[in-house]
Amino acid sequence: MSARLHPESDSTLPSAAAEILVELREAPPLVQCITNAVVTGFTANVLLAAGAAPAMVDIVGEAGMFAGVASGLLVNLGTPTPEQRAASLEAVEGAAESRTPWVLDPVAIGALPVRTSLAHALAERRPTAIRGNASEILALAGLSAGGRGVDATDSTDAAVEAAALLARRHASVVAVSGPIDVVTDGERAFRIANGHSLLTLVTGGGCALGALMAAFLGAARASADPLTAVAAATLVYTVAAERAAAVAAAPGSFAVALLDALHAVSPEDLVEAARVEAGAL
Amino acid sequence: MSARLHPESDSTLPSAAAEILVELREAPPLVQCITNAVVTGFTANVLLAAGAAPAMVDIVGEAGMFAGVASGLLVNLGTPTPEQRAASLEAVEGAAESRTPWVLDPVAIGALPVRTSLAHALAERRPTAIRGNASEILALAGLSAGGRGVDATDSTDAAVEAAALLARRHASVVAVSGPIDVVTDGERAFRIANGHSLLTLVTGGGCALGALMAAFLGAARASADPLTAVAAATLVYTVAAERAAAVAAAPGSFAVALLDALHAVSPEDLVEAARVEAGAL
Amino acid sequence: MSARLHPESDSTLPSAAAEILVELREAPPLVQCITNAVVTGFTANVLLAAGAAPAMVDIVGEAGMFAGVASGLLVNLGTPTPEQRAASLEAVEGAAESRTPWVLDPVAIGALPVRTSLAHALAERRPTAIRGNASEILALAGLSAGGRGVDATDSTDAAVEAAALLARRHASVVAVSGPIDVVTDGERAFRIANGHSLLTLVTGGGCALGALMAAFLGAARASADPLTAVAAATLVYTVAAERAAAVAAAPGSFAVALLDALHAVSPEDLVEAARVEAGAL
Repeated sequence: MSARLHPESDSTLPSAAAEILVELREAPPLVQCITNAVVTGFTANVLLAAGAAPAMVDIVGEAGMFAGVASGLLVNLGTPTPEQRAASLEAVEGAAESRTPWVLDPVAIGALPVRTSLAHALAERRPTAIRGNASEILALAGLSAGGRGVDATDSTDAAVEAAALLARRHASVVAVSGPIDVVTDGERAFRIANGHSLLTLVTGGGCALGALMAAFLGAARASADPLTAVAAATLVYTVAAERAAAVAAAPGSFAVALLDALHAVSPEDLVEAARVEAGAL
Repeated sequence: MSARLHPESDSTLPSAAAEILVELREAPPLVQCITNAVVTGFTANVLLAAGAAPAMVDIVGEAGMFAGVASGLLVNLGTPTPEQRAASLEAVEGAAESRTPWVLDPVAIGALPVRTSLAHALAERRPTAIRGNASEILALAGLSAGGRGVDATDSTDAAVEAAALLARRHASVVAVSGPIDVVTDGERAFRIANGHSLLTLVTGGGCALGALMAAFLGAARASADPLTAVAAATLVYTVAAERAAAVAAAPGSFAVALLDALHAVSPEDLVEAARVEAGAL
Repeated sequence: MSARLHPESDSTLPSAAAEILVELREAPPLVQCITNAVVTGFTANVLLAAGAAPAMVDIVGEAGMFAGVASGLLVNLGTPTPEQRAASLEAVEGAAESRTPWVLDPVAIGALPVRTSLAHALAERRPTAIRGNASEILALAGLSAGGRGVDATDSTDAAVEAAALLARRHASVVAVSGPIDVVTDGERAFRIANGHSLLTLVTGGGCALGALMAAFLGAARASADPLTAVAAATLVYTVAAERAAAVAAAPGSFAVALLDALHAVSPEDLVEAARVEAGAL
């Protein structure tokens, strides 16, 4: 298996993303987030700015039933308290019963045992999508050396192989964040070159994208496959990041401008700005 | 009972709000917040910008005694962990013993059983004020169908009836958020038409107002009745929102401008900008 | 013992701070934060803007091992849940085994029993640095009346005496925040007159400085003593605050500008802007 794509003649992702964005704004999906204490506020603001409706229902006794009525669910393991760990399992069970699409973000797994064990247990429950950086995807696939992630030089190719492996194993879409974002279902893949390095200087820059993926999966349930929905969320987010970076050169003002850009970005903007490659793995 | 007001010849709310704002800035009230993980930072910043002193004391063994010395207390049920649920009951007991005014914000009650049960238990302890949107107020009053809230078309009138019922039942002031905010003690009411729709695109836009109500209740303990204090907080917040919307057209920059406007808004601004109707229910 | 300094002929702090800032940006220290729910997001953003790498690992079973690999650790007692209290003790043990420098921020101790007891237990474990306002430092030293802190008029001198006492007792560096920040190891001291009052209107304005101290202690482990590293973090933060206040006059935009300024501040800026006094106590 190669990490290279076999490019298709043209990509339909930008126009598909434009359509899902219109659908999302016309019928805002209710997005349940079980996420870490650092990024809850920013995550909710990203969802609101893009047009979705956040709901941070993360306690035992409520998380499961809410997952049954939500349009999408995010489980992010950034600061997994005992209450959140139990609520995550309850929510995922509720999501499975109602076929609510859900996203797993295995933050910082690898050496840290509590979250790593939970991430593997959750992955077994077949998330609709899994989102992480190269180290996290390699760790979840069981391909990392168990240490501090991989060298920057070989991380992209190695992580794409791990992503494809994970995607096939769990029947999930897997998204790997990086200078170029890769989204795959194990057979086909999108490479999205949009984005900006200032995203790495804002806490929650990656975590909020996981929530947006849950929103797009919810909005597109009837109209697009999960691979397209997850790639569409990535495209909207990274195009908005480019627009934000055009008016803000430092991390404080960039975070503010990103929210503004998510609110302002139009379907036409996506088609114009997209730098996307699609193909078979 | 009609949801229509029987208007009084003129409202004294703007000048009363101006006076309380001056008092608050001269002697900043210490506001204890037991609130949800999504909005804690924004809530504290709203209080600081307006001139109050926030203190998020929300653990068992401290919440009760702190409520005895605080100027005001907010109990917001947005993400009620077991620790916060126990701390809420302890804090409310401390507030009752010291006659500290307190505000209940029953976030998203209705179908979610843990918070709904807690909200009813807290309401029985006679909050000084209760704040919510139409669905939450209807659910707390026991008047909603138990589902997803009410239609937008009939929500205002129905919620005002529920607010009046709740206000009489618990001897509380009840505030219903919406395009027009309504604040009532069950006999008299204020309708406040100030505000801006961008508030609904900032997480904590409503939750932070609950904290500001606790601040105004604390600042005005000796000088104004609770109905006036709660309506004054609403007026200050919504006038600041209008000033923010005049300089920021998207949610990221609006949230920043709202904090700036809460810091800058003057007593005179309130009197000039107020669009308030007062009357008997 | 007098709170007055016996000034040295010139201070080397600005140039030392400039060197540590360069080191930090070349090899970003990994800073573990166990901090309060109100300020987690802002704290992470402060670290990222300055050039460090935040990691909020605050659960039992992970906090201790992570402290063994982190460059620095912050333990902030702002909202100490039972889980965080246990994780704090575990983390401090891990830090001691690996000689990871760590900072204790005893937020609001004094009358509140849970955090006060924990703060004393943690202080016994010899933090590399302790950071607080005058009331907190007096309370930790056992010198406050046990009430609501001290009068503003005598707080600085009294707190400096308490800081020196604490520093000698625990072999720690102690930093007292105020209009003039004082940092001492019990023998020598720096007085830093930089900063801006808008910092007091942003939640986490002080808490985030504690995290930055942990970052500077980590970055400077091989190159500077803890007294210099802690004072250097204070200088960078307060110089950035002055730059932010030059472009933003209200708290919402000031917080954004502070992050931008932490990203932009150069080693040369520190040397130019520093208003520092050094001397023996």
